[in-house]
This record gives sequence, C-alpha cells and structure tokens, in this order.
Amino acid sequence: MARTAAALIIGNELLSGKTQESNLKNLALLLRRLGVQLRRVVMVLDEVETIAAEVSGLSASHDFVFTSGGVGPTHDDVTIEAVAQAFGAEITTLPELEAMIRSYYGDRTTEGHLRMALAPAGALLHASEQVRWPITVMRNVWVLPGIPEVFEMKLSIIEGVLGADAPFLSRAVFTNMDEGALKPLLDAVVAAFPDVDVGSYPTWSEPSYRTKLTFDGKDAARLDSAVEAFVATLPEGEPQRLA
Amino acid sequence: MARTAAALIIGNELLSGKTQESNLKNLALLLRRLGVQLRRVVMVLDEVETIAAEVSGLSASHDFVFTSGGVGPTHDDVTIEAVAQAFGAEITTLPELEAMIRSYYGDRTTEGHLRMALAPAGALLHASEQVRWPITVMRNVWVLPGIPEVFEMKLSIIEGVLGADAPFLSRAVFTNMDEGALKPLLDAVVAAFPDVDVGSYPTWSEPSYRTKLTFDGKDAARLDSAVEAFVATLPEGEPQRLA
Repeated sequence: MARTAAALIIGNELLSGKTQESNLKNLALLLRRLGVQLRRVVMVLDEVETIAAEVSGLSASHDFVFTSGGVGPTHDDVTIEAVAQAFGAEITTLPELEAMIRSYYGDRTTEGHLRMALAPAGALLHASEQVRWPITVMRNVWVLPGIPEVFEMKLSIIEGVLGADAPFLSRAVFTNMDEGALKPLLDAVVAAFPDVDVGSYPTWSEPSYRTKLTFDGKDAARLDSAVEAFVATLPEGEPQRLA
Repeated sequence: MARTAAALIIGNELLSGKTQESNLKNLALLLRRLGVQLRRVVMVLDEVETIAAEVSGLSASHDFVFTSGGVGPTHDDVTIEAVAQAFGAEITTLPELEAMIRSYYGDRTTEGHLRMALAPAGALLHASEQVRWPITVMRNVWVLPGIPEVFEMKLSIIEGVLGADAPFLSRAVFTNMDEGALKPLLDAVVAAFPDVDVGSYPTWSEPSYRTKLTFDGKDAARLDSAVEAFVATLPEGEPQRLA
C-alpha cells in the first residue's frame, strides 16, 4: 500500500474567492513523484477550533498531513495554535527560530515577528542545505506557509525527508469520441486491469480532442498493457494522440 | 446569521495534480454576492463511499452543498450514486432528463449517455431561461459537473433559485509595511471592529506593495469606518493604495 497524505488549506481569502488557490497542485505533483497518495484536501476558514478538529482527524487517518496558510505574525494566523490544540500540546518559543528571526530582522524585530518562533511543544524543525528556513513539523503534521513562492520553495525539504517510494506514473490517450461512445470500451479495460486507475476527462475548450483518457498506477508495464489493450478496441482513425 | 454553504470537489485528477482546480473561485465569488458564507471545501477521490460520507456530513451542517465533478457516463462518474447513498435513496431515471438526452444525441444515444438521466429518487431539477440543461438537486445538495465551462454556465441557475441576501463586501488597503510592524495596528482595529473580518496578506511577488489588508463584512458603513480608523494609525507615506 502506498503511503497516504492529506492537505489542509487554511484561509478566509480562499473561501471568499478573493484568491485563487495555487499551492495544492505543486504539492500533489511532488507527492505523486514520491509515491505518496494524496487522498483528501480540506479548505477551512481562519478559525482555531475548526482547524484543530481537522488537524486531529486528518492526522489520525493519514500518514502525512500538510497544512498551508495561517502562519505569520498577525491575528488571522492561527495555525500553530490550532495544531497545538489538536495534540493537547503547549505553545512554546523555539530558540532556533527566535535566533533566525532576530538575525534576519535585527533592530527592526518586533513582538509580531517573534510570534513566528512559536511552535507546539514537541515539534521538530526540518530544513535543508538549499532551504535554511525550516518547516515546523508536529508529529505527522507539516506546517507550511500559504504564500505560494515560500510554499513552493519548502517542497524540496519535504522531498528530502520523506524520500521516494516507487512514483505514481501516468499515460494518456486523446480521442475525438465522446464519453457515451467510449463507455463500453472503458468498462472493458477497467475490468481487465483492476490495478490500473482509468480516468476519462471530456473537454469543451480543446479543439484537438474531445476526451482524454488517463491510465495511472505504479507499474509501468501494466500501464502500457492497459493502454495497448484499450487502443486496440478503438475504431479506425483513433486515437488522436498518446502521451 | 448568513446562510452557509460547503463545496465538495470530486476527482482523482485534482488530487493527483494533473488538473488545476478552477471551479471553486467562481462559486465562492457568486456565493459572496448572494450573501452566503462558504465555510468549507472538501476535495476527494472518485470513491462512492468517501463521497457519500462527505455529502451526508456536509449536508447536515450547512444550508447548501455544491458538488463539482463525477457526473457523466463513465465508470469514474459516481457522484449520483454517492448522493443517493448518502440519503438512503434509490437511483431512478428522470424522464425529463432522458427526453433531453434523446433529443440531443438522437440516433447516436447510447446506454452511456442515458446514465446522465439517473438521479436519486426525490431529486428536483432546476433550470433557467438561459440555461436549459438543469442542475439535479437532492435536498440541499446541488450536483454540478466538473467541466469548468459547464460548471460556470450553471452558476446563473443557482443565483436564480437562491436569491440574494445582503452581499458580503470587501475593502482593501495596500502598504509597504511588513506584518511584524503592522501587527499592533491590526490588533487595534480588530479589537475596535469585532464585526469586521480583517485579513492580512503579505506578498513576495508584487513590487507595488508588501502587505494587503482586507476588511470584509455586510455593513458598508462599518467597513469604511474600520478602514478609516486603521489608515489613521499608519505612518506618513502609507497606505500605498486603497481599493
């Protein structure tokens, strides 16, 4: 069984439509590469109780939880408090973080900045050669900032610590058939390859094809066999493209 | 109290990072305009049991639930089955939908196409003058397709049926101050305006400002007062911009 993960995406700005969420896709692609199955994403408001309940539930049911957002100096940054509450932990100042903050801000350091040195008691810090500012990790919960540039930068730390299982692989077939006509052909390949995850995605905006079929799994040979078996059942002139 | 909503976004392609989710923001903006608070978004795989459990929970705890994806003819389209299961309802063919499908596909109509006429027994159909293909609604659960162009088109039906309460409004202030320096000023305005939702969003990519502050709520006069009170506490030369 593949290791499992959940993501908890935090921020009023996402649920109000002010901001387009953009961290999830990068996290999802990294996890696939590491062979970890992202099974669930939850997006919630900046509310301590809501976040704490979610952290508690997701942490118990997945190998890893990655949070995005709510980390920073201001009143709406409540993720650390919520993670501490989820595990019944005190909140403490991590001297290593405090030193980094004081060194970065120097004389301009405020009480606000120092809030970023807070962590649930028992949390660990993970950093890397390339990314010195660490990620705070409480049990299996990785607390990441919501700012997309910073979130993305920190993904390499996750990659280093989690290490790679066999990655998930994907093949795609593009056709001009619609899903109604494809259904019996897909049912046949799904029945013959229960270990391959077959997806069907119609498009309304792409002129070059009508439906994209995907074949996902960890065994390249099985994926290739499934694609071959499926393509053999297509009418003349199909598929339009393989990828 | 504002009416509440949750969104359930369904599809392996989103959790694997193959596709960037793009329906949520449009739904969120519409709900704000209608004065409905979107409180929670959950993204899950194409799994009947998972979707059914989620529909059941979200439906009980929110006024409206909007699902996106998993509607169509193929094996990975399981949303209707899951919604039926969530409410302990049978699945039935809606004659009105069947007639539309037969009229659209004519002689090319397949068993696959006709799967799109299935609905949980007791579901209603909502359409509008402009958008004739209806949305299937089971109790308070609105079942929308995942294809972005179709999802967006159907939003006008939701608008027509839900009607508008007082919309949520937003004001923004852009500054070159960082959050550490802003924190005491924000704490003051948050304390003085507990009915205004104040957000603070630092940016790393925008050259024109460092932190965006937002002031959200339903009472325009209170928002304006909060902005005025906050701006009065800023040092000379700030803010960079109001919006």
